[in-house]
Amino acid sequence: MAAGSTFGTIFKLTTFGESHGSAIGGIIDGVPSNFKIDLDKVQFELDRRKPGQSAIVTQRKESDTVQFLSGLFNGKTTGTPIGFVIPNEDQHSSDYDHLKEAYRPSHADYSYDQKYGTRDHRGGGRSSARETACRVVAGAIAKQFLESLGIEFSTYVDQVGHIKLQDPSFFLTDAIESNLVRCPDELTAERMEHLIRDVRKDGDTVGGCVRCMIVNVPAGLGDPVFDKLHAEIGKAMLSINAVKGVEFGSGFASAEMRGSDHNDLFNSDGSTLTNNSGGIQGGISNGMPIEFRVAFKPVATILKPQETINSIGEKVELLGKGRHDACVVPRAVPIVEAMAAMVILDFYLRQKTTVWE
Amino acid sequence: MAAGSTFGTIFKLTTFGESHGSAIGGIIDGVPSNFKIDLDKVQFELDRRKPGQSAIVTQRKESDTVQFLSGLFNGKTTGTPIGFVIPNEDQHSSDYDHLKEAYRPSHADYSYDQKYGTRDHRGGGRSSARETACRVVAGAIAKQFLESLGIEFSTYVDQVGHIKLQDPSFFLTDAIESNLVRCPDELTAERMEHLIRDVRKDGDTVGGCVRCMIVNVPAGLGDPVFDKLHAEIGKAMLSINAVKGVEFGSGFASAEMRGSDHNDLFNSDGSTLTNNSGGIQGGISNGMPIEFRVAFKPVATILKPQETINSIGEKVELLGKGRHDACVVPRAVPIVEAMAAMVILDFYLRQKTTVWE
Amino acid sequence: MAAGSTFGTIFKLTTFGESHGSAIGGIIDGVPSNFKIDLDKVQFELDRRKPGQSAIVTQRKESDTVQFLSGLFNGKTTGTPIGFVIPNEDQHSSDYDHLKEAYRPSHADYSYDQKYGTRDHRGGGRSSARETACRVVAGAIAKQFLESLGIEFSTYVDQVGHIKLQDPSFFLTDAIESNLVRCPDELTAERMEHLIRDVRKDGDTVGGCVRCMIVNVPAGLGDPVFDKLHAEIGKAMLSINAVKGVEFGSGFASAEMRGSDHNDLFNSDGSTLTNNSGGIQGGISNGMPIEFRVAFKPVATILKPQETINSIGEKVELLGKGRHDACVVPRAVPIVEAMAAMVILDFYLRQKTTVWE
Amino acid sequence: MAAGSTFGTIFKLTTFGESHGSAIGGIIDGVPSNFKIDLDKVQFELDRRKPGQSAIVTQRKESDTVQFLSGLFNGKTTGTPIGFVIPNEDQHSSDYDHLKEAYRPSHADYSYDQKYGTRDHRGGGRSSARETACRVVAGAIAKQFLESLGIEFSTYVDQVGHIKLQDPSFFLTDAIESNLVRCPDELTAERMEHLIRDVRKDGDTVGGCVRCMIVNVPAGLGDPVFDKLHAEIGKAMLSINAVKGVEFGSGFASAEMRGSDHNDLFNSDGSTLTNNSGGIQGGISNGMPIEFRVAFKPVATILKPQETINSIGEKVELLGKGRHDACVVPRAVPIVEAMAAMVILDFYLRQKTTVWE
Repeated sequence: MAAGSTFGTIFKLTTFGESHGSAIGGIIDGVPSNFKIDLDKVQFELDRRKPGQSAIVTQRKESDTVQFLSGLFNGKTTGTPIGFVIPNEDQHSSDYDHLKEAYRPSHADYSYDQKYGTRDHRGGGRSSARETACRVVAGAIAKQFLESLGIEFSTYVDQVGHIKLQDPSFFLTDAIESNLVRCPDELTAERMEHLIRDVRKDGDTVGGCVRCMIVNVPAGLGDPVFDKLHAEIGKAMLSINAVKGVEFGSGFASAEMRGSDHNDLFNSDGSTLTNNSGGIQGGISNGMPIEFRVAFKPVATILKPQETINSIGEKVELLGKGRHDACVVPRAVPIVEAMAAMVILDFYLRQKTTVWE
Repeated sequence: MAAGSTFGTIFKLTTFGESHGSAIGGIIDGVPSNFKIDLDKVQFELDRRKPGQSAIVTQRKESDTVQFLSGLFNGKTTGTPIGFVIPNEDQHSSDYDHLKEAYRPSHADYSYDQKYGTRDHRGGGRSSARETACRVVAGAIAKQFLESLGIEFSTYVDQVGHIKLQDPSFFLTDAIESNLVRCPDELTAERMEHLIRDVRKDGDTVGGCVRCMIVNVPAGLGDPVFDKLHAEIGKAMLSINAVKGVEFGSGFASAEMRGSDHNDLFNSDGSTLTNNSGGIQGGISNGMPIEFRVAFKPVATILKPQETINSIGEKVELLGKGRHDACVVPRAVPIVEAMAAMVILDFYLRQKTTVWE
Repeated sequence: MAAGSTFGTIFKLTTFGESHGSAIGGIIDGVPSNFKIDLDKVQFELDRRKPGQSAIVTQRKESDTVQFLSGLFNGKTTGTPIGFVIPNEDQHSSDYDHLKEAYRPSHADYSYDQKYGTRDHRGGGRSSARETACRVVAGAIAKQFLESLGIEFSTYVDQVGHIKLQDPSFFLTDAIESNLVRCPDELTAERMEHLIRDVRKDGDTVGGCVRCMIVNVPAGLGDPVFDKLHAEIGKAMLSINAVKGVEFGSGFASAEMRGSDHNDLFNSDGSTLTNNSGGIQGGISNGMPIEFRVAFKPVATILKPQETINSIGEKVELLGKGRHDACVVPRAVPIVEAMAAMVILDFYLRQKTTVWE
Repeated sequence: MAAGSTFGTIFKLTTFGESHGSAIGGIIDGVPSNFKIDLDKVQFELDRRKPGQSAIVTQRKESDTVQFLSGLFNGKTTGTPIGFVIPNEDQHSSDYDHLKEAYRPSHADYSYDQKYGTRDHRGGGRSSARETACRVVAGAIAKQFLESLGIEFSTYVDQVGHIKLQDPSFFLTDAIESNLVRCPDELTAERMEHLIRDVRKDGDTVGGCVRCMIVNVPAGLGDPVFDKLHAEIGKAMLSINAVKGVEFGSGFASAEMRGSDHNDLFNSDGSTLTNNSGGIQGGISNGMPIEFRVAFKPVATILKPQETINSIGEKVELLGKGRHDACVVPRAVPIVEAMAAMVILDFYLRQKTTVWE
């Protein structure tokens, strides 16, 4: 996997596409045969990610309509690869002309040029967050397999700037989708929305966090050494644009704790009284809810002037243009969920080869 | 890589071994030929990880002497796989007899049994932290390749319980190795050591954090989509026993920041004024120091009695026995460094195939 | 790579698509950046494979026009994945209605049903040879990289039925393309063409062989154990539809030879007097021409009535319909070459990480 | 898998070791848990491969005793990696002193030097056939899993020089092991043995072929595109030292056949009247016996003087020394079987993830 465009071991997604070509797309290989897919649900997840969906996200307009080219017959999976494309619509390449020579601060422009010795300046190439639409397609399919096993997700915004959700818990989709921020607590969501609007008025951006809980994951998924379940979920999260950190269960707070407080004592049925482990012990799911939290930095594109350099090292002034998000976490919710779903399904399939019987 | 005992893409480590068999070991494949390896340096790193090295770590005695079986000729790498074994010495299997039926809280005993349908109760099987000795061997070799390129590591303890190191920076090995805790600030290290001794007297354990800085990494390493450089480092860290979280550069603090504060502005030479990006932008190294921080939970084995269950769900009392660490971070330092070195070298080799010239 | 739709290690092709969906296509990952691709040459290779190209191949009409969606900018590779699609045009699905219930002898219908528990009866699903068009796209790109290094291919038909080409050698493309059979000897080609026409008149089919020589491959490509250069080429060839055997250098004839006759003695410059090794010794190229030969069985679809069974085991008569090839080898030539080119380029890139310097 | 020391996708063998280090060995990952392994059977297979076993093979003496280091507990697999070593005993490195500067004709010496820029001249490094002992260990384990499913192997010599076995069929192990050549027909075996003895008296070597039949393989194993079952078996065979060709079912003879003769017509139960397909259709097993044949060149080391070159291109005379096989096929039988068993088990495990139920 030397070039890094493939994710997964058995259920595998390979993607292609830049934000400013004619289309992006992907191939999902290793999809088990004979399972009925609801394509509307796939589009529903894409709509949760797409630009222009609400007043607090970027106003770029793209319908993000996925077209499936193979792997489905009479509404069911055939076991062969699912190929799909999502045409690019609202490219506005001229929006990027002012970037032809400039490296945008805290974007991938400079590092990308160092890597490839060349760069398509229109929109960040493969570093564009547009690529995550393909992940949402594959994740929405993975989620349907998992739902048929009773596995359910609750993924939501739990922090925007300094505003944090108190008492995280398993919230239903209706609560999460009841507001533009995708924070399931109404008052907190309102405060977050105000903050995002204020920040945008300033031409600035702000960071945030997304939390994910997954219930009914069977015990036994994950491997004990390198491919620990949370190691793969962690990689999945850190591979999403703008993510700076990830923590499981007690997370960074565990560094301050004593073992006698941190240990999750057992009930007779194998469940535990507490869940500091975040549903994973020794890299293997234990049947308790899987819980993790993901930190996103503020979007790098701001509408304030910044001094930067061009490709020959000259100082230039950069005035942010284009239509960007003031805060990325509301649109990141379906991406976090998609990546988590792919990992869980992959390990579920891997587990089928573990015990001889 | 369905069974998860292999790490890396080009420079690849595959490991085997339980803490209570006759030996653990591994195979490193993809080692470039014609490079002189200093085997004493490899043993030095193993000694930094080994039990019994100081008064504040577990008093189990194992010399952890690595034996190389292949891949080296006249002191140089041949380009063929390096096979190695580390014999197990101080097994004390009877220490574990009381565990035959009990699931230890917050260990992998229960989840392991759910996965494999069977379990070697002596010491945790593959979930034992002993397995990390193999990672240290491979990492110590990777580090020598990197050092020949001028790449240097500074890895140290920056938190034990509530005690945190102020002003993290690039510290030299001498400062880090000057005390038992491996915290480069003398006064902070003393306070940490006291805390660890106190906690141990209580029969309890405590968590902590390790910080790693890597300088002189060339710009251009990492891939822009799934295999982002920090995504692979993150997976590497989360695959280490007891790790609950990882963050890069500004990390979780970035969630509270504005873009105008967070963006790393460029100097004329492509370096940046600040390093909130932690040396990685869009998944690709930018030439600035790579910086990350790893959270470890308190060790699950405590010497206080705990109620738990056995494999048929009956309540049993567990009295911790054996010789365990009260705090794992001093011994985790070389493991964190080893895993980071393997990732950096792997991406360095991957990069050799990226540009056609 | 559990589901088998990906080929290669660094230069990697992943494909999707059935013969009767809307399109087939693929993603090529690991393409080095900054290389100028001639897209007309890619289409030229597709035209050599396409149906309807001459009087002696199937008369199905498909233009097989490839559309590139990503990975190219201003005519050069960007280092990011090349996504492409080839629309399906002449599907005639009703041609296959008579097959809905019948398993065609020596096709994949029965084994496919056993594997997936379901089957798209229209044209063989993924088992359709149409999928090889995607290989030709990727191989045509690989070949351009290799040609820039001076590596050249000579791939041609050297047997149809009992008619064999005498004196195989390195023939130029002009000689190979001078006739419909792609056999570089004019008289032999005429006899082969007559045989194919006769067989077709009978409603029957006939097998054949393709030979490939590759010159100027640098010494040192390939690995000494599992991934021997000829092992990967062999897998590549056996993965092409209808292939039943592959041999390198002296091949099956070597079983009758003595070592004193078979050994390739060295000239002073490291070249050898003979080339029984086929350019590969111990799995590693030695700088001599790589030579191998591939056997294709007769096409399974014949226009004579055959007794067969349906999916519930009842005997049914099958009357071959549709437009099929009487002999597959003329169209197989560009596929053999494409697969070989992908393997050579992949090992060329792998070799870049082998020696430390 | 860039460095090529790993074989398999789920059931995976990684090997290390040169013929003249202290040991060779390997790690088998992905072994399903809870299966009882008969270790004597593993040693039995190693004994069939070992040097010195009979009067017609090399008289080097090595006991080839395998030591298992992990992955087994109370005689059963634990699901974790099986690590093993085979100490090297009879190294006689001084036998190779005369080779320090000379490239042996048709060995890997020259190509190996070109690849790695360095070479351990003692016995061929990783190119030594000694490495295949590790394959036999893993294959013997795979075979036990398969036997528990009713799958059986019949692997034997069917050609030495110009002497061929007539009427190949499924022969029992007793018949195969009844003579030193491992050819199940007594008279043919005698003629083969005479030929091998004559060739050896001449200081020469001779080639041969091994045939393998596998019965009771369930239908449905293999993938329809790149990872066809016979493509993986073919790669496995071509990765064995000295193999120059492989053919399945009708093989190279199919090139002369008509489709109407070649097609395997169905019986009502899905079996076929003939088995030109060799048990595999469209890359997927169809439940009929899997049949293939492997060609081995004559051993390159002969005891006659040969002119060759040294590493600076000077002509030198090489007088073969050491203790080598005059014909490799009797000892190749267990290697062919081991590699085939690994492939079949790997695909059996892969198939477990194919259908959703």
